[in-house]
Amino acid sequence: MIVSYAELAGTLERGLVAVGLDADRARRCAQLIADSTRDGVPSHGLNLFPRVVSMIRSGAIDPHARAVRVATHGALERWDGGRGIGALNAYDAMAAAIARARATGIACVALGNTSHWMRGGSYGWQAADARTIGLCWTNTLPNLPPWGCDSPRIGNNPFVVAVPRASGHVVLDMAMSQFSYGALAGYRARGEKLPVAGGFDRDGHLTDDPAAIEASRRPLPIGFWKGSGLSIVLDIIAAALAGGQATHEIPADPERETGLSQVFIAIDAASLAGADVERIADEVIASVQARYPGERTLAARRQHLCDGIEVDDDAWAVARALT
Amino acid sequence: MIVSYAELAGTLERGLVAVGLDADRARRCAQLIADSTRDGVPSHGLNLFPRVVSMIRSGAIDPHARAVRVATHGALERWDGGRGIGALNAYDAMAAAIARARATGIACVALGNTSHWMRGGSYGWQAADARTIGLCWTNTLPNLPPWGCDSPRIGNNPFVVAVPRASGHVVLDMAMSQFSYGALAGYRARGEKLPVAGGFDRDGHLTDDPAAIEASRRPLPIGFWKGSGLSIVLDIIAAALAGGQATHEIPADPERETGLSQVFIAIDAASLAGADVERIADEVIASVQARYPGERTLAARRQHLCDGIEVDDDAWAVARALT
Repeated sequence: MIVSYAELAGTLERGLVAVGLDADRARRCAQLIADSTRDGVPSHGLNLFPRVVSMIRSGAIDPHARAVRVATHGALERWDGGRGIGALNAYDAMAAAIARARATGIACVALGNTSHWMRGGSYGWQAADARTIGLCWTNTLPNLPPWGCDSPRIGNNPFVVAVPRASGHVVLDMAMSQFSYGALAGYRARGEKLPVAGGFDRDGHLTDDPAAIEASRRPLPIGFWKGSGLSIVLDIIAAALAGGQATHEIPADPERETGLSQVFIAIDAASLAGADVERIADEVIASVQARYPGERTLAARRQHLCDGIEVDDDAWAVARALT
Repeated sequence: MIVSYAELAGTLERGLVAVGLDADRARRCAQLIADSTRDGVPSHGLNLFPRVVSMIRSGAIDPHARAVRVATHGALERWDGGRGIGALNAYDAMAAAIARARATGIACVALGNTSHWMRGGSYGWQAADARTIGLCWTNTLPNLPPWGCDSPRIGNNPFVVAVPRASGHVVLDMAMSQFSYGALAGYRARGEKLPVAGGFDRDGHLTDDPAAIEASRRPLPIGFWKGSGLSIVLDIIAAALAGGQATHEIPADPERETGLSQVFIAIDAASLAGADVERIADEVIASVQARYPGERTLAARRQHLCDGIEVDDDAWAVARALT
């Protein structure tokens, strides 16, 4: 099924109103989900929508909760997400970091007690759209074995870094696992091997067979021991600053994955006289002569706005059934 | 040759005085170099010292220059390193970020026009010793091919994240390449293969043969396309905030590697009521049941303080010859 962006966003908005969101929040949330889908990341857009709906219905997510500031010191703030909708909480947290960074140059909002933020890159694009540098990360349920271990005790803790640029923001959005479970399923469905080893099989051998990794549940951290270490330290910082849960405290069932901890940092580079982020970004990209982070997102966006967006039938049916 | 920590630090201090440093700066710089060597990272400690001396003698590094603040907006500062000694500039920049974060919760010092900071982890340990969370990174000369390319057009841009903990700080210090050239040389000298593929051979095949990667000069970014993208975006941010050079502007000759750009962020978590970083770090480390970042450093430190430090003969001879 191919739908237009407007049809996708409108259907999601009506669906979110139907499950209890205020009109303005339903519109914002629908836009975030539709944008991710339009940008070529349906796994973290529309395809996660059925889970959001089911978690609202089960009471795991409170559709009425709004993130509120609970502590502050200078340019450092702590917010409580009230187990509300993760995408809206994350958007509000990054918006608060951006607003404060206008006055203080750099600002940090730590958000606890929230739920899945869906596509992390959304908040990088948000920061860059506001012409600020953005860094943010989240912890997750335990879904990745630390290096040297065979059971999932750390999270794949997506990490996002964004830089504004007139001709296309530079936005890195990377999980700490080399391939997400969504990516593994995609390779398997297409009958393809992974381009590089992506995890271990049940016998503990590195493999490029996506099905073998899905079966073992042992995806590989990026950089082996390095990504494992980065996941650990990002989890500690998020939980500590947010006053929230660390990965080991988060239920391993995705339908109960709430109480996440996240960090949003905005830097208003333009507030420093002479800082010309956009020119430097242009020059670096020209010098590298390789794909830069965010380039494929923009290409997908242009194509989908032009040709429409192919939606997953099951997820689309859930959204349509609400209205 | 095995020397004590005191002998190593004292010899370096006298050597640095001999090449023109003030007594207090010679002591601090010697301590930073000796600490890295003591901590099991001689490649970024004593073994880099001969290059520092030769760059002072060639005029590439000005031993008298001190980093100075040139712009500020709130908790965001820009410093100029005056092409001075990289380790001292980095230490001063992180100290400034820590001091400002006491008042503002989070603070960022961007340092341009500096030289090689030696061991990046030093400034993570520094932040954690001050009971703050530290994040810092540097760009480097072009020494890593971006993903999909075969010539070095990006830097391995080390990235450091540190969390304070009474029983041992958590300090991640990772370059964007899976193995540094120093690590490759070590595996080769021991006649060992790498534990995982570390780069491409001259024919473009992934290999675990360290000599083949040294020959091709095509080490692998961590996480393949992910580390490549992270290197690019960290370079842009460092150059833009510091008002300094990006990797493509830095001479590819290590003896002329000056004009680097770096970012130092400190977060005073304790300034938020209820933030208990150390307890959360303890709990996360206990839950992970795997090696945490910084653990091996502490083990090396204890051993070397007890048994002495084996020093590279050539580097030690350079240090001794100065005094």
